[in-house]
Amino acid sequence: MQVAILTFDGFNELDSFVAAAILNRLRPYGWTAHITAPTETVTSLNGVIVHRQRPLDFVEEADAVLIGSGVRTRDIAADLSMLARLRPDPTRQLIAAQCSGTLLLAKLGLIGDLPACTDLTNKKWVVEAGVNVIDAPFAAHGNVATAGGCLAAPYLAGWMIARGGSPDLAREALHYVAPVGEKDRFVNHALAVIAGEMADA
Amino acid sequence: MQVAILTFDGFNELDSFVAAAILNRLRPYGWTAHITAPTETVTSLNGVIVHRQRPLDFVEEADAVLIGSGVRTRDIAADLSMLARLRPDPTRQLIAAQCSGTLLLAKLGLIGDLPACTDLTNKKWVVEAGVNVIDAPFAAHGNVATAGGCLAAPYLAGWMIARGGSPDLAREALHYVAPVGEKDRFVNHALAVIAGEMADA
Repeated sequence: MQVAILTFDGFNELDSFVAAAILNRLRPYGWTAHITAPTETVTSLNGVIVHRQRPLDFVEEADAVLIGSGVRTRDIAADLSMLARLRPDPTRQLIAAQCSGTLLLAKLGLIGDLPACTDLTNKKWVVEAGVNVIDAPFAAHGNVATAGGCLAAPYLAGWMIARGGSPDLAREALHYVAPVGEKDRFVNHALAVIAGEMADA
Repeated sequence: MQVAILTFDGFNELDSFVAAAILNRLRPYGWTAHITAPTETVTSLNGVIVHRQRPLDFVEEADAVLIGSGVRTRDIAADLSMLARLRPDPTRQLIAAQCSGTLLLAKLGLIGDLPACTDLTNKKWVVEAGVNVIDAPFAAHGNVATAGGCLAAPYLAGWMIARGGSPDLAREALHYVAPVGEKDRFVNHALAVIAGEMADA
């Protein structure tokens, strides 16, 4: 599974790197998550400059696409030429969005009136875009999932692994990153959150 | 509070960026966390190239130092010229280490025989260095703290904020990054873990 982690200028490091790092735990199984951006480098909301690993057109060839979040998502959501370059396809790809990334999914017509998640700061703009935002960390409908709150990223990554691989593989990746001494607590909770949203997959 | 996030080639993105992003939530209060590295750029264990924000000598002027983790920490721990360039001072700085960062703290003589944390992969090397590794996500003694497991990073960041600022400020930063719909669960648990280790501070 090759995963595009869509990352734009102003990105929140948590919203790109938490999921990417969890997905990359599965490199021995052929999974790779790639920081994917429209420009050679992107600068985070805290001034960290990161080199992209794939250009934007990797979105079309990836097996899965995860849209990160950041402080400039509203500008991107208003940029019709940028939106036209993003063509994730839920009929053949797993698609996930974190926090303000849900706004981009909505603008791309991939949310509709299904319940979706975002963070508290971006909620206003996501609701304005017509999304039914729920007070939950994670929601999935078919091949499209959304998460709200930076540290809901493990649910998004775990769902992607459970869907593209297996729940056992998701358990393995989540177990590695979980706090020592709390691994069962963390993993069992995350898998329960994910399983609750996979019933209608 | 100016915080050096020590980051070396081969770094684990979670172990530098989770704490850095949480600390940077407090920029409005004068806190800044800076990716601090010996070279202009560092490459993560997953091939992500990041530009440093501060050079290595920033470690001496920072108010707090957080040592990240990565796949090359054992090489760094064996590099006496590199160790000589790292002079964190627990008499005037808060010092934290994540996962394999605990090995560097041990080599710098900052752990001694006090209980400390690391991740399961690095445990063998940290024990070999003479550290009393415990099955817990977080431990603190005075101005030195350690965490084990990538996603124990919020405890390390929260402790640093509680010590350098206040527990209320730690609550605010952790609340922002917590999953939506689980914020009280997440924040109360994290603050309880941290408070349990602050009794002897």
